[in-house]
Amino acid sequence: MYKSKTRMSAGFAILLAATLALTTLLNTPALAQEATPPAADPVFIFNTLLFLLGGILVVWMAAGFAMLEAGMVQAKNVSMQCTKNIALYSIAGLMFWLIGYNVMYEGVDGGFIGQFLPKSIPDPAKDTGDYAAASDWFFQMAFCATAASIVSGTLAERIKLWPFLIFVALLCGVIYPVVGAWTWGKGFLSTMGFLDFAGSSIVHSTGGWAALAGALILGPRIAKYQDGKLTPLPGSNMPLATLGTFILWLGWFGFNGASQLAFATNIDASAVSRIFVNTNLAAAGGVVTAILLSQLLYKKVDLTFALNGALAGLVAITAEPLTPSPTSAILIGAVGGIIVVFAVPMLDKLKIDDVVGAIPVHLFAGIWGTMAVPLTNGDANFITQATGVAAIGAMVFSVSIIFWIFMRLTIGLRCTPEQEQKGLDITEIGLEAYPEFKQGY
Amino acid sequence: MYKSKTRMSAGFAILLAATLALTTLLNTPALAQEATPPAADPVFIFNTLLFLLGGILVVWMAAGFAMLEAGMVQAKNVSMQCTKNIALYSIAGLMFWLIGYNVMYEGVDGGFIGQFLPKSIPDPAKDTGDYAAASDWFFQMAFCATAASIVSGTLAERIKLWPFLIFVALLCGVIYPVVGAWTWGKGFLSTMGFLDFAGSSIVHSTGGWAALAGALILGPRIAKYQDGKLTPLPGSNMPLATLGTFILWLGWFGFNGASQLAFATNIDASAVSRIFVNTNLAAAGGVVTAILLSQLLYKKVDLTFALNGALAGLVAITAEPLTPSPTSAILIGAVGGIIVVFAVPMLDKLKIDDVVGAIPVHLFAGIWGTMAVPLTNGDANFITQATGVAAIGAMVFSVSIIFWIFMRLTIGLRCTPEQEQKGLDITEIGLEAYPEFKQGY
Amino acid sequence: MYKSKTRMSAGFAILLAATLALTTLLNTPALAQEATPPAADPVFIFNTLLFLLGGILVVWMAAGFAMLEAGMVQAKNVSMQCTKNIALYSIAGLMFWLIGYNVMYEGVDGGFIGQFLPKSIPDPAKDTGDYAAASDWFFQMAFCATAASIVSGTLAERIKLWPFLIFVALLCGVIYPVVGAWTWGKGFLSTMGFLDFAGSSIVHSTGGWAALAGALILGPRIAKYQDGKLTPLPGSNMPLATLGTFILWLGWFGFNGASQLAFATNIDASAVSRIFVNTNLAAAGGVVTAILLSQLLYKKVDLTFALNGALAGLVAITAEPLTPSPTSAILIGAVGGIIVVFAVPMLDKLKIDDVVGAIPVHLFAGIWGTMAVPLTNGDANFITQATGVAAIGAMVFSVSIIFWIFMRLTIGLRCTPEQEQKGLDITEIGLEAYPEFKQGY
Repeated sequence: MYKSKTRMSAGFAILLAATLALTTLLNTPALAQEATPPAADPVFIFNTLLFLLGGILVVWMAAGFAMLEAGMVQAKNVSMQCTKNIALYSIAGLMFWLIGYNVMYEGVDGGFIGQFLPKSIPDPAKDTGDYAAASDWFFQMAFCATAASIVSGTLAERIKLWPFLIFVALLCGVIYPVVGAWTWGKGFLSTMGFLDFAGSSIVHSTGGWAALAGALILGPRIAKYQDGKLTPLPGSNMPLATLGTFILWLGWFGFNGASQLAFATNIDASAVSRIFVNTNLAAAGGVVTAILLSQLLYKKVDLTFALNGALAGLVAITAEPLTPSPTSAILIGAVGGIIVVFAVPMLDKLKIDDVVGAIPVHLFAGIWGTMAVPLTNGDANFITQATGVAAIGAMVFSVSIIFWIFMRLTIGLRCTPEQEQKGLDITEIGLEAYPEFKQGY
Repeated sequence: MYKSKTRMSAGFAILLAATLALTTLLNTPALAQEATPPAADPVFIFNTLLFLLGGILVVWMAAGFAMLEAGMVQAKNVSMQCTKNIALYSIAGLMFWLIGYNVMYEGVDGGFIGQFLPKSIPDPAKDTGDYAAASDWFFQMAFCATAASIVSGTLAERIKLWPFLIFVALLCGVIYPVVGAWTWGKGFLSTMGFLDFAGSSIVHSTGGWAALAGALILGPRIAKYQDGKLTPLPGSNMPLATLGTFILWLGWFGFNGASQLAFATNIDASAVSRIFVNTNLAAAGGVVTAILLSQLLYKKVDLTFALNGALAGLVAITAEPLTPSPTSAILIGAVGGIIVVFAVPMLDKLKIDDVVGAIPVHLFAGIWGTMAVPLTNGDANFITQATGVAAIGAMVFSVSIIFWIFMRLTIGLRCTPEQEQKGLDITEIGLEAYPEFKQGY
Repeated sequence: MYKSKTRMSAGFAILLAATLALTTLLNTPALAQEATPPAADPVFIFNTLLFLLGGILVVWMAAGFAMLEAGMVQAKNVSMQCTKNIALYSIAGLMFWLIGYNVMYEGVDGGFIGQFLPKSIPDPAKDTGDYAAASDWFFQMAFCATAASIVSGTLAERIKLWPFLIFVALLCGVIYPVVGAWTWGKGFLSTMGFLDFAGSSIVHSTGGWAALAGALILGPRIAKYQDGKLTPLPGSNMPLATLGTFILWLGWFGFNGASQLAFATNIDASAVSRIFVNTNLAAAGGVVTAILLSQLLYKKVDLTFALNGALAGLVAITAEPLTPSPTSAILIGAVGGIIVVFAVPMLDKLKIDDVVGAIPVHLFAGIWGTMAVPLTNGDANFITQATGVAAIGAMVFSVSIIFWIFMRLTIGLRCTPEQEQKGLDITEIGLEAYPEFKQGY
């Protein structure tokens, strides 16, 4: 490839020369002003491009969660999991449109919440600012959907479809936007100096707290801890779970990278690049740590630990993917891998049934990532970070648990034991995922 | 897409004027001219980037169709479906190179057809215009492949491989390019004022009409309507079908977004962003409508309705993804969802066997989307839209049906009942898709 | 994210101020120079964007290899293959960070090897040059991982996990970087004039030579050539293999396209576009040739030939995707397809057991592509190209075979016959890929 570098340097020289010519030789300013193109601003275009590309990558994460979860549940619940994932992504978009965006961003002003109004998107010809308003909405919408996807995995194989979808509407319309308002909407946590670059706490722990509350109210799958002993209920399709993890890893470059929110200066482009490197190395650190620990502790390399190690590394670096050196990024991710290997069995001891391991990955590694910000970013301090973690946790957990209890007491949250035994694909969806493959252990 | 070319030209004109002003009004012209970089024009680069990124996303849709169809057919026909999809994408590229592109774009001039010549791609150093010629070819080629993918799904599980592939060559070399020439190639429909932004009719209905003609001549799968009753032949792998739908949804951002054809002004960048939002909300509207209707009508939420609801919403918004408000986009997509829920059983009543539901999704929702353009775009009118729908339908359906009949009478179109019963993977491909999984209902 | 908004606003303010300065205030050149924004250079931004987008696409190829291999192995070894792939991608990143990048690029200076030092990534504010250093690292890292992925497929179903992962560390830390240094690091092959645009030899044949050495030392799977006759061991999941191929095809646009290394001039943007077209047509040529030959020779269209035909076409065009005309690109790819159809049975005759066909695809088609460069690029000559092919082959093959022998003699390379018969998922991973699907032929 070196050959082209010459071409590139030549191009660079030409452009530089031209820029210099334009900037030094102009001495008819009036004419120049008349000719100024008001509507071809590279800042606007580059930033919009970043939001659109980042948004596409984060939207792709919805497919990643769908595949991860479809692979990690039993064959009898796969269609249900697919339905939940495509429906939640749709509802997230509609609710974030209807109220979420403005609750999060409109007039929060150091406070706790924005306005309950649909986001208005300007006509392209009137879209001022340094990026297209719609591109920002698109990017933020994709984040909102991510929080909902996290909940879906933990509560799989026993929750009924509609109570879950109603919760998604609440999460994407209100809970997540309020949490987001506190920091990204310039609410009280932002005023305090809480730092969470791309949302280890704001997105991932929010999903994790909601999932934990749901798991507690819903209870474990019947077969999981029956007769006082742990029965593993292995996922039905490991390559699908692997694909889901690769998709999520890919999408995370958009999640973290585009959270720089700007791409129109050298410093921004360079920062996005460094974020890519750190994001990738943290995930790699999580994988390698998880497989080494798995080999040492269990004498085998468990694939699910490798997959969740990658995700935990990614969640951990999300709170601050820019300031760490690559070495620090690897270590931050590695701690994520450690968390997974120890927290998954710990939850089983507590009989908290988390089907895909979302609580260790998104809640625990999210807290770790948020608390690790001061290690590499001098603008952060531990007390403020802890305050943010606690405030988010208290709000999301309490609202969620009230909702889950309310649902349980009214329309019901959980399918019947017969339905659970038979599988939700037949009882709720009426369509088996693999109708032709004979099943049984 | 030609309409946007006007916008692009406007943006280009503004920028060009400015550049010319900056470079020609300099009062030391000799020096300025020497320094003028003829070859670092942001308009050229941004527009080329849009075509390349859009093209990649639309190419990715080929994988989406492959996965959707592989998941929706029975296990015994999955390798066949995979073979058809990778082969059709290849043939589409070769035929669009050999004749398609120039039939569609070269010298149509208000008429019905361009020239039968291979597209010549200029040397990079001589590539003038406001985007790289090759980037445009790449983007348009991907569209052409999409039309072919649609046919593949409907005719699955009974058509022989080679007649299908010969049809793909005809479709991508002639049928689709001629239809495209009428509007995007500035042919007679464009002169009339027919509007179809990214191809609800030009791409999707074209595929749908060809599929319908094929389904009529080919007849249903033997087992489907045997003994006067409908036997559902459920797809073998629902998570794969779900993955395919997510891939298509993702690819659609390129399909609709890059059909703006320009990204070098604020207005264009803003328009692409709004197209992303509307595209996403229309799909979400399709999903939510389809699952609600499915629950109300059948007391279960059918995953295939949810998936096809998303696709129908996407097809519906494709004819005009820019002018609708977000609320209108949701409604346009929602009607797509309604179409799916009612048209799928209707086709079954007519004993038209459409394996993946491509006729409701691409033909019916495509017509709906095209007819809905005047609802949000004042430049369109119902009569012209109806004329375009009818002209495209008449041409594609009649040429297709002649081809299918000719094939049936000559080399044969359909595999034998024994082959159909045994599965095409063994009889035509010699390779089972899942050789180790024991099969049976 | 609000914090970055400040940065973005600052960036915007700087640019705006600069633009204003340029357009209104320029009539005192001294002042104009003061107002020049040093940190918003479109060359830097466009080139960085190309590396980041190309990098993402090549990273995505890791998922493609994982799916291709997971689909092509027997069901009992799928979890193992998934584990190997996510682990190798992680190790590749860590090793390329720790030593690989600088061995490849730092101070090679016409010689054979660079420096054994970790790559240091500059602070964004100090990132000079015409692209972000981190974006380049990210792109090159993804290439390194590709070489490792190739080895994984050939040696599947019998190699033990840890010896393989140790080899990956050696390959990504030393072997591949040394080979890369010779040409892309401006080492001796570059001085000689060896041309390999995106790495038909440097990446693909390197992986292929390492795989061939491994296959020879490891020996075939027990069941493959037992009792003197060839027993096909068909892959367990063909749609997954198809998905993997589509992913690789998509990723290849980044692999070849971004190897132009620049996107900031019209000529570069045009060149990248032409590379996209040629890359796509070469793959299409490979597919169509492979299925036609497969039909002629075996009276059936073998899906695995179609998939490997696409990949061989892609590998073949990788050495020079820019100078060929589209027709030449189709022919170069078509020869790749021919190679696959004849080399796969040839390896079987030699009892070299290559589970996924990586040796024909990456080694043989890679050599073909490298030798074909002089056919379309006047700067290349056959002797230098042959010298490069031989030098790379000699180095990679000999170092690899020494490593494989050393491993075999020390910690052991191959699982026991009992383990092989039982499947590596149970014996090494402890997790079946499809625990519920009853298996058997």
